Amino acid sequence: MKEYRLLIETSDTKGLVYNISKILFEHNLNIISNAEFVDNETDEFFMRTVITGEFEEAILKKDLEKVLPINSKIKISDNTKKDIVILATKEMHCLGDLLIKHEAGELEANITAVISNHESLKGLVEKFEIPFEYISHENLPREEHEQKVIQAIKKYSFEYIVLAKYMRILTAGFVQTFPMQILNIHHSFLPAFIGANPYKQAHQRGVKIIGATSHWVTNDLDEGPIIAQDITRVDHNYSWEDMRDAGRNVEKVVLSNALDLVLKDRVFVHGNKTVIL
Amino acid sequence: MKEYRLLIETSDTKGLVYNISKILFEHNLNIISNAEFVDNETDEFFMRTVITGEFEEAILKKDLEKVLPINSKIKISDNTKKDIVILATKEMHCLGDLLIKHEAGELEANITAVISNHESLKGLVEKFEIPFEYISHENLPREEHEQKVIQAIKKYSFEYIVLAKYMRILTAGFVQTFPMQILNIHHSFLPAFIGANPYKQAHQRGVKIIGATSHWVTNDLDEGPIIAQDITRVDHNYSWEDMRDAGRNVEKVVLSNALDLVLKDRVFVHGNKTVIL
Amino acid sequence: MKEYRLLIETSDTKGLVYNISKILFEHNLNIISNAEFVDNETDEFFMRTVITGEFEEAILKKDLEKVLPINSKIKISDNTKKDIVILATKEMHCLGDLLIKHEAGELEANITAVISNHESLKGLVEKFEIPFEYISHENLPREEHEQKVIQAIKKYSFEYIVLAKYMRILTAGFVQTFPMQILNIHHSFLPAFIGANPYKQAHQRGVKIIGATSHWVTNDLDEGPIIAQDITRVDHNYSWEDMRDAGRNVEKVVLSNALDLVLKDRVFVHGNKTVIL
Amino acid sequence: MKEYRLLIETSDTKGLVYNISKILFEHNLNIISNAEFVDNETDEFFMRTVITGEFEEAILKKDLEKVLPINSKIKISDNTKKDIVILATKEMHCLGDLLIKHEAGELEANITAVISNHESLKGLVEKFEIPFEYISHENLPREEHEQKVIQAIKKYSFEYIVLAKYMRILTAGFVQTFPMQILNIHHSFLPAFIGANPYKQAHQRGVKIIGATSHWVTNDLDEGPIIAQDITRVDHNYSWEDMRDAGRNVEKVVLSNALDLVLKDRVFVHGNKTVIL
Repeated sequence: MKEYRLLIETSDTKGLVYNISKILFEHNLNIISNAEFVDNETDEFFMRTVITGEFEEAILKKDLEKVLPINSKIKISDNTKKDIVILATKEMHCLGDLLIKHEAGELEANITAVISNHESLKGLVEKFEIPFEYISHENLPREEHEQKVIQAIKKYSFEYIVLAKYMRILTAGFVQTFPMQILNIHHSFLPAFIGANPYKQAHQRGVKIIGATSHWVTNDLDEGPIIAQDITRVDHNYSWEDMRDAGRNVEKVVLSNALDLVLKDRVFVHGNKTVIL
Repeated sequence: MKEYRLLIETSDTKGLVYNISKILFEHNLNIISNAEFVDNETDEFFMRTVITGEFEEAILKKDLEKVLPINSKIKISDNTKKDIVILATKEMHCLGDLLIKHEAGELEANITAVISNHESLKGLVEKFEIPFEYISHENLPREEHEQKVIQAIKKYSFEYIVLAKYMRILTAGFVQTFPMQILNIHHSFLPAFIGANPYKQAHQRGVKIIGATSHWVTNDLDEGPIIAQDITRVDHNYSWEDMRDAGRNVEKVVLSNALDLVLKDRVFVHGNKTVIL
Repeated sequence: MKEYRLLIETSDTKGLVYNISKILFEHNLNIISNAEFVDNETDEFFMRTVITGEFEEAILKKDLEKVLPINSKIKISDNTKKDIVILATKEMHCLGDLLIKHEAGELEANITAVISNHESLKGLVEKFEIPFEYISHENLPREEHEQKVIQAIKKYSFEYIVLAKYMRILTAGFVQTFPMQILNIHHSFLPAFIGANPYKQAHQRGVKIIGATSHWVTNDLDEGPIIAQDITRVDHNYSWEDMRDAGRNVEKVVLSNALDLVLKDRVFVHGNKTVIL
Repeated sequence: MKEYRLLIETSDTKGLVYNISKILFEHNLNIISNAEFVDNETDEFFMRTVITGEFEEAILKKDLEKVLPINSKIKISDNTKKDIVILATKEMHCLGDLLIKHEAGELEANITAVISNHESLKGLVEKFEIPFEYISHENLPREEHEQKVIQAIKKYSFEYIVLAKYMRILTAGFVQTFPMQILNIHHSFLPAFIGANPYKQAHQRGVKIIGATSHWVTNDLDEGPIIAQDITRVDHNYSWEDMRDAGRNVEKVVLSNALDLVLKDRVFVHGNKTVIL
């Protein structure tokens, strides 16, 4: 059954829940589930309401705007699959996990294309009859390569861009082209081991736990709002390559879980953090 | 600041959130946080709202009753510390953990008494100037011993009874005297290893993870609604005593976390399950 | 570089490590790593030694036999990839995970065939150019179906048979055909929720954590020696289908980790338990 | 029964296990358990052997030295309780946890004294009849305060000094007085959030998991060899104070587990890392 997700972000004021639920009641909508969060430090209010019923989106929004503070954000999404484009480099584990989920019908998304700066994933992607674009970065200035990637992305339908171990640092220009649309998996428990070769760093530091972090990409490398994290235990027997291998299972599960939250419209960005409702 | 917790459990009907929030709005109350859950299988609705402001409890309840289905449960609690009585046997780890938290002012409860069927914990409890009642079960029929324990409990003020490794099986009579007021810690990952010596059972079975479960006590041994669970990893190097020792850390943390949820009025009982809001 | 794994299981006696290491020293072998375990209850001794160097297997074994108690088990394996046959039914997540790892060269095994009692996985498997055998169980007595499966398995080279969510109960006859060669993934935290529909059982019981267990298949359903387990957290918001979906990530990682231990010859069977060295 | 722990650290050479086990065999000692680790990068060899039997320590060591490379480290410890001195500041959770374990006889150590720069823990410590020394840091230069603390420590018997949330930065002079004898608990998942107020930092960064780290104290703040780490999950509902409260359970368990490893002589220092055997 078609469900709609009403997403509201506004400054907290008395009577908000009352006023919003009144409008929904007057529109004769059913509330399937409802979740709110108020950040008591910043007085920011977040609400995600799953509704069923018939309504005119423009009218509902207008009615909500009347009772909400100005500058409130209102978004209405639904439970149909969203389109995504995946960027990857050479590693198969994250990409493969999404391809299998997609094939099994377990991904709440259509993968419309996979783009890579290497050719090695072409065979895997094409097995699943998904367009693969190979855009080598060799002998190209970073910006030029990114322009080609942006053009390639724009050929396809997408709501989000998923970096499934895309091992290129993105310029501010690239990031700003797709604000809060780029989801990344970083192979460390951020903010530990920012930057290159986190498993080597982790091995060097002698940690007993390694992790992975999925986050929105912003201009600041590895500093965007965190959506999901998980960990696994290691010990002195692990070489850095063993850590990398063990980390792959964590990376693919964290990315897949974060993407699932995004696709279900459960992730609000709140400054440099996320609110998951 | 004094906060009130409005707890509502009712059957789901259209406009519930609207109607409830309308009453709160009309009473001029501030909503600090709000959480709801609808069980779509049973159409049961649960809501926990934290409010501040001045109100007459009787009038607020009456006004809420007017807009809620009959047989709705409405409870208003607040954030003052609740009294608890602890029952224990010989082991110190769960009891000690609660005593230290109590001493540190980190427990949202006053421990009004500790009751045990052994005398060995007397020294520990009395260090903290908390009444200790020793009620031996030796040479007593189970019911008679329990009557003495019930009488001892009733000498003290309590909202909940915490079984901090109280190693006696309770009769239906005992349990029914304190319905959904008795919180237990079971030293296994329920429903695995119900009954006696779960660590020996776990060792025998060769599991790679052990756990602990905190639950409400009902007539069915180890079958009451689960509030919290946690686990820790073990391997072939662990004797059953090693599992027991490792399990103690899990037991005390799980009991403490479950109790914290209970004391914050976050635990609803829903059939044989809990809803944590 | 070629490494050999010397696996010894025997009854504990004084001087075992000395006597074994003496033989290895005399054969001029390098010890890369060495792990032992003595079960002090049963006085059983387990040792896994990774060695490099040149040796005659028959002579080394004979020399070891001279210094070990009679009835000692000595096995020499190496780090070349082992062949496996996978059995599956309809679900893609475990099978898909192994296929991707295989494709990426990250599996220490060659998948020589996939056999299923349904046809739906054929498309997926054949993408990877791996033989797929469809052997329907419909209108066949259990034993007759199993005989067909056994014949199909025997067409291929295999050291282990991996049940990647093969949803058929196996007869004693089948199990005895491949003793301690069949690895299963059970979709619960065993011994909780033995039998059918563990996620429905878990949902019904209201647990706060779900898990998965990989174990050797023996005659007793879901009772074989456990190799690996892991868990994930759930709450009242999870329907049983949500638990199943969340559980899939755990299942595939647990199966993959257990298989990795098996392929590295790190798993000893010890009664109804495993010793992982 | 009295058990001895033979701890050997040396450079890896062919025949080490053979030569060591030969000596033990010739001394007619029983090996209860044996664990080795070779760091293949640095060719460093670590071995922990638990033995029973009668022997002259000086002779055994001398015999071992004959077969080991020069500059090998040989240490023989046993399973009698070791003395420790605890340093704390104001927080009760880690100290209280150790006091309860001590009282229960579950700590493999005698707490000979607790020293604090505040007076507030005096009451708690003296309940357990353990000497408490209050050494205020007010109006004292750091070095002078430390000298007083060092003098206080030296009044008591100790093998290790446990910083149970001792909130003072130590000078190099202090650390060098007790090399690899000072065990700390840091309230973050190191190397994330080094320095002051890690929970505020974690809250600010919006992490989804917080942790704690127990490590040897070296001259570099929060950079010493890590012994144990653990984590717990948080979300947007957690204020930094909620994170601190949730973190306390992790801190006390991690410190207690790390101390247990230390007391069982299972922790080897290997550069800036630990090897746990």
